Amino acid sequence: MNVAVIQFNATANKGQNIQRALRLVRQAAGRGADFVLLPEVFHYRGIPDSRRGYQDMAESVPGTSLRPLMEEARQRKIYILAGSILEKIPGGRKAYNTSVLIGPQGRLLARYRKNHLFNAVIDGKTTNESKVFRPGTEKVIAKVGGWTAGISICFDVRFPEQYRWYAQQGAEILCVPSAFTKATGQAHWEILLRARAIENQCYVLAPNQVGRDGKGIPAYGNSMIIDPWGKILARGSGDKEQVLVARLDKKSVRARKNILGVSK
Amino acid sequence: MNVAVIQFNATANKGQNIQRALRLVRQAAGRGADFVLLPEVFHYRGIPDSRRGYQDMAESVPGTSLRPLMEEARQRKIYILAGSILEKIPGGRKAYNTSVLIGPQGRLLARYRKNHLFNAVIDGKTTNESKVFRPGTEKVIAKVGGWTAGISICFDVRFPEQYRWYAQQGAEILCVPSAFTKATGQAHWEILLRARAIENQCYVLAPNQVGRDGKGIPAYGNSMIIDPWGKILARGSGDKEQVLVARLDKKSVRARKNILGVSK
Repeated sequence: MNVAVIQFNATANKGQNIQRALRLVRQAAGRGADFVLLPEVFHYRGIPDSRRGYQDMAESVPGTSLRPLMEEARQRKIYILAGSILEKIPGGRKAYNTSVLIGPQGRLLARYRKNHLFNAVIDGKTTNESKVFRPGTEKVIAKVGGWTAGISICFDVRFPEQYRWYAQQGAEILCVPSAFTKATGQAHWEILLRARAIENQCYVLAPNQVGRDGKGIPAYGNSMIIDPWGKILARGSGDKEQVLVARLDKKSVRARKNILGVSK
Repeated sequence: MNVAVIQFNATANKGQNIQRALRLVRQAAGRGADFVLLPEVFHYRGIPDSRRGYQDMAESVPGTSLRPLMEEARQRKIYILAGSILEKIPGGRKAYNTSVLIGPQGRLLARYRKNHLFNAVIDGKTTNESKVFRPGTEKVIAKVGGWTAGISICFDVRFPEQYRWYAQQGAEILCVPSAFTKATGQAHWEILLRARAIENQCYVLAPNQVGRDGKGIPAYGNSMIIDPWGKILARGSGDKEQVLVARLDKKSVRARKNILGVSK
């Protein structure tokens, strides 16, 4: 299976984000990708109105942002992980931060709501996702072609137990679409992603944002495709939009499991 | 607290190993260390007789190898983690691979038996610890001065759940005395150790072996002292015995926990 990880610079302009995302998905499909991943909050990366929260930007699943991707998946016969969109919670001020897997028939195959929300003070700037998001409570694995994938989002990567559980359920691919900041990214992004690959003997697919979010906090880029031995097969730059492509090989997963008996 | 991590090249000569270990412990104490760590199997690193297993080399706890270290700890008023010794199992052919914490009064404070045994084929050479060791079944945390430490050995580092449990019990230090091979070390050692530090916001103390074991398999060296942000405070070379010293700071643990709320 060929996978593509899209490094993306989402802005507060939703319509443009979708159009640019579609263009990059087409580019990835053109390069032979069977499975294309977009990063966290690729459809909107602005500051929510503090009173209304993400009410105006959040969508039902499927909604405005997902429909064109579903059509694209159907036309190109590919899987797309719509890294995350803001999912409306009826009546609420908060949204879910939701990753949606779309299949080659254009249907929704799985929905993962970010379990671990990012609350931190980075370089004096506070990010408090718990104020605007409701955490999901379920872990989600799904079939992608003949492969089994576990879905997570960004800050989840700090919680190894989620990925252990995925591996125990038979996952061979761990998806970590992200909007990982530059400050924490420089210190932790590569280490944590490679550790998840190594300890679970899985491929790790991690598309990240680049550029600055609505608050001016820069994202780290350095999107990655990592093999089950922890080797980086493809790596994005720190500053521009990119499509990274690599081939996944079932034999690589099996061979690694044979060398080291750490699957239990 | 000042800690010292001893990078060591243990051989099949037990008496000499103990004498050299004592000399390096004294050197560490002379450099101000309050807590000194020796690597896995520092007292014997030969090939056990296949019929008798480790019967001739294994000891009771305490025994020949530990007594001089207990006396040394008492005289210098330091803590010593005797990384591991082979612990006799009465009547059995197998031994435990056991890490022993000695306190500044020269008493045994904790005993940890390696939980996860290393069974692997590395560069065509088979290591099958399950044939010679019995796995321990308990995780062990202990007080070291005013600090709480979780104890593990080498291959355990591939199992993040052990360290998560230590952190949940309040550990601020994770000890990983090792005889990590060069082949796997180049690919995994630094990544896994730093991930354990980052995800648990703990110091990681990891003395490793250098040189070749009885089968000729080279160890990786690169012993490490890592802070709770994943920064390497001290790092050994790949090929020689060394004493690495660093200062641990409680404020560093607390500050990291305040920045990122990942302790739950």
